[in-house]
Amino acid sequence: MLSRDGALRYVALTAAHPSQTGRPLYDRSPQSHPKMLNSDSSDSSKTALHALLRPESIAIIGATGDSNKLNGRPFHYLRRDGYTGRIYPVNPKYDELDGIPCFPDVDSLPETPDLAIIIVAARRVIATVEALGRKGVPVAVIFSAGFGEMGEEGQRLESELLETARKNGIRICGPNNLGLINAFEGMTATFSQYAYEPPVTGPVAFASQSGAFGTGIAALARSQGAGFGYFVNTGNEADITLTEVLEELLDDDRIKVAAAYLEGLKNPESLLRLAAKSIQLNKPLVVTKVGRNEAGVRAAASHTGALAGEDAVFDAVARQHGIVRANNEQHLLDLVSAFSTCRIPEGRGVAIITQSGGAAALMADRAEELGLDVPVLSENTQARLREVIPPFGMPGNPVDLTAQFIAEPDILTRSVTIALEDPAVHAAVIWFQLMHGFVDELVEVLIELKRTVTKPFVVCWLAAPPGALDRIRDEGICVIGATEPAIDIISGMASYGEARQRLLEEPRPIELAHVVTDDNLPVPVPSLHARNLLVKADMPLVAAELASNGEEAAALGAKLGWPIALKIESPDILHKSDAGGVQLGLTTEEEVRSATDEILASAAQHSPNAHIDGVLVQPMAAPGTELVLGMRRDPIFGPIIMFGLGGVFIETLKDVAFGRAPLTKSDVSQMIATLKCKALLDGARGLPSVNQEVLSDALIALSYFAVDHPEISEVDLNPVFANADGLIAVDWMVLSTEKR
Amino acid sequence: MLSRDGALRYVALTAAHPSQTGRPLYDRSPQSHPKMLNSDSSDSSKTALHALLRPESIAIIGATGDSNKLNGRPFHYLRRDGYTGRIYPVNPKYDELDGIPCFPDVDSLPETPDLAIIIVAARRVIATVEALGRKGVPVAVIFSAGFGEMGEEGQRLESELLETARKNGIRICGPNNLGLINAFEGMTATFSQYAYEPPVTGPVAFASQSGAFGTGIAALARSQGAGFGYFVNTGNEADITLTEVLEELLDDDRIKVAAAYLEGLKNPESLLRLAAKSIQLNKPLVVTKVGRNEAGVRAAASHTGALAGEDAVFDAVARQHGIVRANNEQHLLDLVSAFSTCRIPEGRGVAIITQSGGAAALMADRAEELGLDVPVLSENTQARLREVIPPFGMPGNPVDLTAQFIAEPDILTRSVTIALEDPAVHAAVIWFQLMHGFVDELVEVLIELKRTVTKPFVVCWLAAPPGALDRIRDEGICVIGATEPAIDIISGMASYGEARQRLLEEPRPIELAHVVTDDNLPVPVPSLHARNLLVKADMPLVAAELASNGEEAAALGAKLGWPIALKIESPDILHKSDAGGVQLGLTTEEEVRSATDEILASAAQHSPNAHIDGVLVQPMAAPGTELVLGMRRDPIFGPIIMFGLGGVFIETLKDVAFGRAPLTKSDVSQMIATLKCKALLDGARGLPSVNQEVLSDALIALSYFAVDHPEISEVDLNPVFANADGLIAVDWMVLSTEKR
Repeated sequence: MLSRDGALRYVALTAAHPSQTGRPLYDRSPQSHPKMLNSDSSDSSKTALHALLRPESIAIIGATGDSNKLNGRPFHYLRRDGYTGRIYPVNPKYDELDGIPCFPDVDSLPETPDLAIIIVAARRVIATVEALGRKGVPVAVIFSAGFGEMGEEGQRLESELLETARKNGIRICGPNNLGLINAFEGMTATFSQYAYEPPVTGPVAFASQSGAFGTGIAALARSQGAGFGYFVNTGNEADITLTEVLEELLDDDRIKVAAAYLEGLKNPESLLRLAAKSIQLNKPLVVTKVGRNEAGVRAAASHTGALAGEDAVFDAVARQHGIVRANNEQHLLDLVSAFSTCRIPEGRGVAIITQSGGAAALMADRAEELGLDVPVLSENTQARLREVIPPFGMPGNPVDLTAQFIAEPDILTRSVTIALEDPAVHAAVIWFQLMHGFVDELVEVLIELKRTVTKPFVVCWLAAPPGALDRIRDEGICVIGATEPAIDIISGMASYGEARQRLLEEPRPIELAHVVTDDNLPVPVPSLHARNLLVKADMPLVAAELASNGEEAAALGAKLGWPIALKIESPDILHKSDAGGVQLGLTTEEEVRSATDEILASAAQHSPNAHIDGVLVQPMAAPGTELVLGMRRDPIFGPIIMFGLGGVFIETLKDVAFGRAPLTKSDVSQMIATLKCKALLDGARGLPSVNQEVLSDALIALSYFAVDHPEISEVDLNPVFANADGLIAVDWMVLSTEKR
Repeated sequence: MLSRDGALRYVALTAAHPSQTGRPLYDRSPQSHPKMLNSDSSDSSKTALHALLRPESIAIIGATGDSNKLNGRPFHYLRRDGYTGRIYPVNPKYDELDGIPCFPDVDSLPETPDLAIIIVAARRVIATVEALGRKGVPVAVIFSAGFGEMGEEGQRLESELLETARKNGIRICGPNNLGLINAFEGMTATFSQYAYEPPVTGPVAFASQSGAFGTGIAALARSQGAGFGYFVNTGNEADITLTEVLEELLDDDRIKVAAAYLEGLKNPESLLRLAAKSIQLNKPLVVTKVGRNEAGVRAAASHTGALAGEDAVFDAVARQHGIVRANNEQHLLDLVSAFSTCRIPEGRGVAIITQSGGAAALMADRAEELGLDVPVLSENTQARLREVIPPFGMPGNPVDLTAQFIAEPDILTRSVTIALEDPAVHAAVIWFQLMHGFVDELVEVLIELKRTVTKPFVVCWLAAPPGALDRIRDEGICVIGATEPAIDIISGMASYGEARQRLLEEPRPIELAHVVTDDNLPVPVPSLHARNLLVKADMPLVAAELASNGEEAAALGAKLGWPIALKIESPDILHKSDAGGVQLGLTTEEEVRSATDEILASAAQHSPNAHIDGVLVQPMAAPGTELVLGMRRDPIFGPIIMFGLGGVFIETLKDVAFGRAPLTKSDVSQMIATLKCKALLDGARGLPSVNQEVLSDALIALSYFAVDHPEISEVDLNPVFANADGLIAVDWMVLSTEKR
C-alpha cells in the first residue's frame, strides 16, 4: 500500500485524527445565536457548514489528473495552494493521481472525509450522495449541472437529490455550483477561472449565488489589491443557502466583513439572523441584489429559478436590519474595502480636503445628494487651518490646500488632523492626483495620519502613479481612484453606523410569523368583526354598528352622534362606492331612513346575488391629513407594514414606505424619513400637521397585530384622518388567508 | 548670430512665414456660424483662438532652462514632444537656453509670435501684456496666479489686466491657468503634471475650468488608454472662455468629441453656439458641471469666483440643446470613449449578451432605471439564436450564452449579429470576464463584429487579463471594465441620438434676449395692463375688468356673467388673500355690492397706506386640473419657462420642469416627460385629463412673450385650470425689471 501513502504532505497530518475513530468530526457546541427557528440551523447543520468551509479532509469524486479539465482543477488547485488537509481523489479509472492515491469508490476511502466534491454526470449524482451519506460524510459540494436550472425535468431531479441527501444525513452545497475557496487554508475547492491564479487572503467572506458573476467580482477584487478570505458559490441552493454560509463565516476571527451577490432568497430567517449577527459582531454585511426592476427580475428568474421578492420590500428589510446595499460590483468592492480598514464614522459630517476646488465641488454635490453634511468648519477650526495652509488656500469646507502640500507634506498631515478634530466632522475624504515623484512622501504622511487620528478617512487618489494605491492599501488605509465613489463610501459607512446604533439600542426580533390557515375567519372579514380585532390591538378606528334597515340605522345615528355615514355591508361587495353603497354626512333620522333604503336598493340592483348583511353606521370623523396604513404578507419576509400619505401620493407617485413587522419606534422614524412628501406630515401647505407620536404607535400596533394574527393576509386602513391630536381610520378592509 | 540660429529644428520652418512680413498671421474667413451676438466672436477673436490652439510660433515670457521649475516646463515639454513650430524663450537673464536663443524682452523678438506664454510675477503681467499687444501678438496664456482668485485686490488687478489686453488688441487665456496642449502638434504649452509623460493624441477636445481636476481627468484618461487631442485649462477666464475654445476646436477634423469640466458660465451664448455646432457636426459635447447642490456651489464659488447658475436651469438647458451631461470624471471618460468609437443608436432598445445571468440581471435593472428598453427578442430572433447557443443558454433578452462560447467563439459572433438584427434592438452590450488564455480569440471575434455589424455595441469585460482592454480599444471598439457603466454609456448615447434628431428637425434659436430697462412699466404691472400684454401674446386668461365701487362691480358681474370673483387691485398688495382681498363664487348683484365693500374695508385696514386701484371683477372659470406656468429671467440663460402641476406638487415636491425660451413643441413634450406627476396630466386619479396640445401652445406663447418683452422679469400664472377642452389662467402676476 505504499502508493496510497505516497503524498506524505497530505497524509502525515492524519495520525491522531478523531474522524479515524469513527466519531463525528465536529461536535463542538453550537455558538450562542439569536433564536433559531427552523431545522436547517440544528447542531448537525452547524457542523456540516463548518466541515464545508474549513474541512480537514476532502474527497474529490470524479477527479482526474489533467488540470486543464474541469474535473482536474480542484485537485490541482488544492495542491498548488498548499491545502493543509488530506485529499482523497476518487475515480475507478486511476490508482493514483500525480503521486496521490486514488480510490475506486466512496466506500473504499480510508477515513470519512469532512467534505466531498462531486464532479460526475448529473444522472450519477444521487447515487454518489447516497454513498457519501452512508459513509458519514457531513457535506458535499456538487459541481454537476443539469438540475433545477434545466426546466421541469431538472427540477424533479433536484428534488430527488435533496430528498436523498436528507434521508442520508448529508447536507449539500449546489448543485450547478463552481465551488468554494478558503484562502486562509489554501482550500481552493473550485473550478472557477478565478483560481487560475492563487487566491489572495483578506478579511472578507464573499458568497455569490451566481458562479460566473461571483468569479468576476472576486477577480476584480484581486486586480484591485483586495483579497477574499472566503469565496463561496452556492449554485442552485437545493439545500445550503448563501446566508447560512455567511452566518457560519462571521464566526471566523479572520473575517471582518461579509459580502454577497444575491438573486433570490430561499431562507429569509437566515438572512435576518445573519444581519443580526453582523450587527452584534460589528462585521458589516454588504449585499448587491438584483431584480430591482421588471427586466432584472426576468433575467434573475430565468437564471436561477429563485423567487425574486418585490424589491421595495427587500430594500426596506435591508435598511431596517442594518444590511448595507451596494448598487453594483464596484460599489460592493468599495464598501468592502472601507469596512475592512476604517472605523465607522459616528455621524454624517464629512470634511473634504483637496488640492483641487473642482474635485471638491463634485464631492460636495455628491455628499448633499446622499444626505451627508459638508459642515462649514467652526471658526476655531478655520483659524487653526489658516495657520497651516497657504494664503490662497480655503479653510472652510471643502478645504483647499492647493498644491503647496507637495512641497510641504506636513500641511497635509496637520490639515487633516485639524479638520477631523472639528466636532461637526465625523469622517474625511483626502483627495489628490498624479504626484509622480512624491509617492514616498505621501505614503509616509498617510501612514502617520492612520496612526494618529481616531476618526476615519478615505483617500481618493486620481490617476495615481503605478503601485501607489497598492502601497497605501497594504498599510490598511482605504484608498480609491475615483471621486464620487469616495463620497459613496463615506455615506455607506455612516448609514451602517446609524443602523448599528439603532439596532443595538433596540434589537430587532428575528422570528417571521408563518401563515397559518386553521382559523375560521371568512376571507373578507366582516367589518364589525374586523373592527373588533383591530380595536383590541389598539388601532384607532371610528365607531361603527350594523343596522339591517332604515329604522335601526336612524336609531344608531342618534346613538352614535350626528353627522353620520352609511356603508353597505356585504361579503360580496368590496367596492362599496361603485355599488352606490355609501352615503356621507347625514344629519337627521329622516335622511338616514331614506339613505338606507337607497343604499339597499342600489346594492340589490348592482349585485343581485350578493348576500347583504345590512348597512354600517359610523359617525363622521373630523377630517385631517389623509393617510393610508396597510399590511400585506410578503412571500419571502412575511408581514410587511406599509404607510404613506393618501390620494395622489399613493396612487400616482407610489410614495410609500415599507417595514417588516414587528416595527420599532426607530423603524417608523426611518420609514417616514424615506417619504418624498414627508414635509406634509409637518403641516406644510396648510395641511394639519400630524401627531407623529400617535402615528408611530398606530403603525407599531398594526405591526404586532400582523404578527399575532398569521391567519390575516392583508389589512388596508384607507383613509385614516390625521391631525395634531391623533388619527382615526374611517374605512378598513381585512382579508384572511384563503383556504386551500 | 549663430547662437540664435542654433535650434535648426525650430527655426528652419520660418523661411517664408507671413508673420515675418508684419502682416497678421491669421486672416482666413471666419467659418459660417449661427448668429453671433457679442463682440467676443468677431473675426479677430477667431484668429486669436486659432493662434492659441494651433500656433506656429510661441514666445515663453519668463522661461528658464530648469525643467524642474514651473517656468522651465513648457520650454522643456515643447521640445521633448517635438513641437514643430518656433519657440522663443524670453528672459533677460539668459542668452540661450539649451542651445536655443533666448531674448531679453518682447520687443527684441525676431518675429511676432502667434502665442505668448506668460510666466512672470503677477505685478509684471500687465506690462508684459501691453508689450505683447504692441508687438501684435494675437493671444497670450497667462500662467501667473494672484488675480481674481485672490479676493478684491486680485479682482481689481484682473479687471485692469483685461482692460489692458482689450486696449492693446490682444486676447488672453487665464490668468491662473496651467496652460494647454495640442497633442497632435506636440504643443505641450503647460506646466500641468499631466505632461510629466508625453501626451497621447486622440479624437477628443477636452477643456477644464479647473486646472488641477482637469489634469486629473486627462491623466486618468491616459491611464485608461484614451488620448485627448487637446487639453485646455481656461483658468480664471478673464477673457477667453472654455466654451469659445471648444467652439473653435470642433472645426478641427481630427476631433470627434468635445468634453468639458465646468464650474460656472461667463458666456452662455457661446455655450449655446457650441451646442448647436456640436449637433450640426455630430460631434457630441459631454459636460461635467458642478454646483448641483448648495455645498457644491459653495466650493465652486470660492474656487473660481464664477457665478454658478441654478443647477436645474443648467440641466434643462443642456437637455434642450443636446448637451450630454456626465455625473463625474469617470462617467465623462466612459461617454467620451463611446462617442469616439460608436455609431449613435437609433433608439432605446438594448440587447444584453452575457456569459452570466447575474451580470445580465444587474444590467437589465440598470437599463430600466435609465429608461432603456430590454425588449424580449422576437420569436424569429429567438429561434435563430436557439440554433446557435447551447441548450442551457437563454435566447430571450438578456441573452445568456453560457461559457460555451469560449470553446466556440463563433457562438459569440453569430449571437451578437442575430440579436442586433432584431428590429427592437438598437445597441448591444457584450459582457464577459477574465478569459485568461482566450484573449486572442476574443479580440478576433470583436474585430470581426466591429467590421460586420451596423448597430453599435459596447464590450464590458470584467477583470480582464492585463493588456486585453487596450488591445480592443486600439481596434476602435468601445470597451469598459464595469457592469452598470456599460448601460450608462448606452443610455447616454441613445439620449444624445434622440436630442440630435429632435434638434435637426427643429433647430433651436441661440439668441438670448437681454434685459432692457428703458420701459416705463411699473414693477408689479397692474393686472389689467398685464392681462392685455399676455392676451395679445395668445395666453389664455380669464376675462377681467376693474371696478372702483360696489355699484360698478355689480354691473360688471351682470356683464361678464355669473358667478364672479372679486379681487383687490393695488400695487402695494401682492398677497391679496392675506389682506382679505378676495371673494369667490358671488352670484348676485347684491352679494357683489357688499363683497366689494368688505374687500375695500379689509384692504384699508390691512394696508392703510396702500394705493387702491379698485377691485378686479372676473367670471369664475370651470375648475380643472390646477397647473402653474411661469417665467423668470435666469442671470445666465435669460428667460426660463417653468411648468408644473399646482398644489403640493409645486410646493412640497418641487416637481417642475424648466426650459429656455423660446420653446419648441418637442421641448414641451420633453419637459412634460421629466415630471414625476405626469400621469396626472392624462387624467389619472379622477382628475380631468389635460389637453396637451393647448398646454403646449400656451407654454410656447409664454416663451415668445418672454423673448419679446425683455422689460418683464417675471410672470406667474397660478392657478391655471386645465381640462380636455383647454386651459385658462385665473390669476396672474407680472413683474417688470426694477429700475436702478
